Amino acid sequence: MASEFDLIARYFTRAAPAGLLGVGDDCALFPVPPGEQVATSTDLLLEGRHFFPDVDPKALGHKALAVNLSDLAAMGARPVGCVLGLALPRLDEPWLAAFADGFHALADAHGCPLIGGDTTRSAHDLAISVTVFGAVAPGQALRRDGARPGDDVWVSGELGAADVAYRLLDGQYPADPALLAATRDALEWPQPQVALGLALRGIAHSAIDISDGLLQDLGHILAASRVGASLHYERIPVAAALASMDEAPLRRAVLGGGDVYQLCFTAPASRREAVLAAARSAGARAARIGEIRQQAGLDVQDGQGRTLADLPAGFDHFPAA
Amino acid sequence: MASEFDLIARYFTRAAPAGLLGVGDDCALFPVPPGEQVATSTDLLLEGRHFFPDVDPKALGHKALAVNLSDLAAMGARPVGCVLGLALPRLDEPWLAAFADGFHALADAHGCPLIGGDTTRSAHDLAISVTVFGAVAPGQALRRDGARPGDDVWVSGELGAADVAYRLLDGQYPADPALLAATRDALEWPQPQVALGLALRGIAHSAIDISDGLLQDLGHILAASRVGASLHYERIPVAAALASMDEAPLRRAVLGGGDVYQLCFTAPASRREAVLAAARSAGARAARIGEIRQQAGLDVQDGQGRTLADLPAGFDHFPAA
Repeated sequence: MASEFDLIARYFTRAAPAGLLGVGDDCALFPVPPGEQVATSTDLLLEGRHFFPDVDPKALGHKALAVNLSDLAAMGARPVGCVLGLALPRLDEPWLAAFADGFHALADAHGCPLIGGDTTRSAHDLAISVTVFGAVAPGQALRRDGARPGDDVWVSGELGAADVAYRLLDGQYPADPALLAATRDALEWPQPQVALGLALRGIAHSAIDISDGLLQDLGHILAASRVGASLHYERIPVAAALASMDEAPLRRAVLGGGDVYQLCFTAPASRREAVLAAARSAGARAARIGEIRQQAGLDVQDGQGRTLADLPAGFDHFPAA
Repeated sequence: MASEFDLIARYFTRAAPAGLLGVGDDCALFPVPPGEQVATSTDLLLEGRHFFPDVDPKALGHKALAVNLSDLAAMGARPVGCVLGLALPRLDEPWLAAFADGFHALADAHGCPLIGGDTTRSAHDLAISVTVFGAVAPGQALRRDGARPGDDVWVSGELGAADVAYRLLDGQYPADPALLAATRDALEWPQPQVALGLALRGIAHSAIDISDGLLQDLGHILAASRVGASLHYERIPVAAALASMDEAPLRRAVLGGGDVYQLCFTAPASRREAVLAAARSAGARAARIGEIRQQAGLDVQDGQGRTLADLPAGFDHFPAA
């Protein structure tokens, strides 16, 4: 049977790109361009909590890196490299090969090579930790605390599909193979908006990626920037697959659904054309869904200008008992 | 009950040092001095695998960071910052407070502030992921692949105590409160040799930290450098507390015991005085325990020049069934 070290070597070691010292020393080394800072983000993903035990391992490898690249995207940082920690309950080589495939394919697509890692055996569940590194000039980073009254609120992509796929797979909704087929990729193969984040530098005042739900994540921008916002529900782009859903679960998916990995950002009203041009250049879609205001709070209005009640709460890993 | 975000804020957020953007945005940001590279290392620690469920949480916070700082030490890198992922099976505020205390105290001692993190709930076990960042000029990094025939092999500190403490706590050895008291700090409060690693830049040809056992970790240097080595058993510094142990378990502890977090390094024979001066300047002890040779392999000789048989195998997270 292969040893731990053989395993790491077989599936995760690749020739390190020029200038980088990769897997195989106490530390990995990577350079940072003069005048730029390192942006870093870390996520710890657990079986049963962040993914289903039977998820396609190739999709899981993709997503484990995607959720971290999405944080770089929200910062306007260019990916430089990443490290991976894997705690495996058993030695399953086909699983490892598929996981590594999905991970490396996304890493290659974004120029974010795996340069270090740690593999260990777990007693129960699979655990995955990924830390990504990017580079960004200090004054260009898109932060959460830069939203100002008069900014528009924007969102990239379409919302809602990942939440619906999750609830279908979790058995919260009755089985609907057609709906699952139309929404599953949004949940399992999220595409981090790295190009859009880079294109928005110098244009957006603030940005965040939507991991816990639009309202909750926008709420982080509002709190950090000490401002409030009004959103217009009918302007929020909704995945076409959800057209036939009832209004209540649809709203919950659009406003509260997590695992989206699109960007929510703010930019001055004077830069609307620049935002749209940035989105086009990144091959992304951007929709203007609301306004930042001085007064604290966050409300959502319907097409008639009425404020929606019973907004969905955000996701909390430790909900009140 | 406190929400996830409140918890993170209470125990892990501190004012970020000047120039760093800490916990509270999509990414943390940190600068790297011109001409230096980033050195990074990641570890994933699991309850029942890397620590006992009832370990003092303050010691655990210390050790979770210490094992990563030890990788920076082995690279000759200066600590810059770290990120922490925590998967908690339950919300235990006294535990969190003590863990944070131990973590921050070591971070402060090494100028390695916590700048980002991820807290989540686990289904079963506690899992801790730490990724550290350091800075080092590219040509100065202590690597594994630089050992050359004619180098001395050196080790810092004393070996053996952590292994004995582990086996006592694990019930592999009969209870011996005096021996446990004398060895437990080595296991639970390892001191990463950061100052020694920095002092050895420009002197040592190669270095590694001893996490899996002297023979196994030196073996990584030998493999990466394509050389062999002879060690002299009687020259290896052994913790005084182990003086009364039987020879077989003592050898296993000294040669095969993991969790040491001292440095094993090689340096040319012409630099012996420089090594000793570096160790003195770092407040560390360094012992010359062997030589690097051209011929592959690793042997250990006793005081009479006889080669020891039955050397302990290294630690493997996935031992052959």
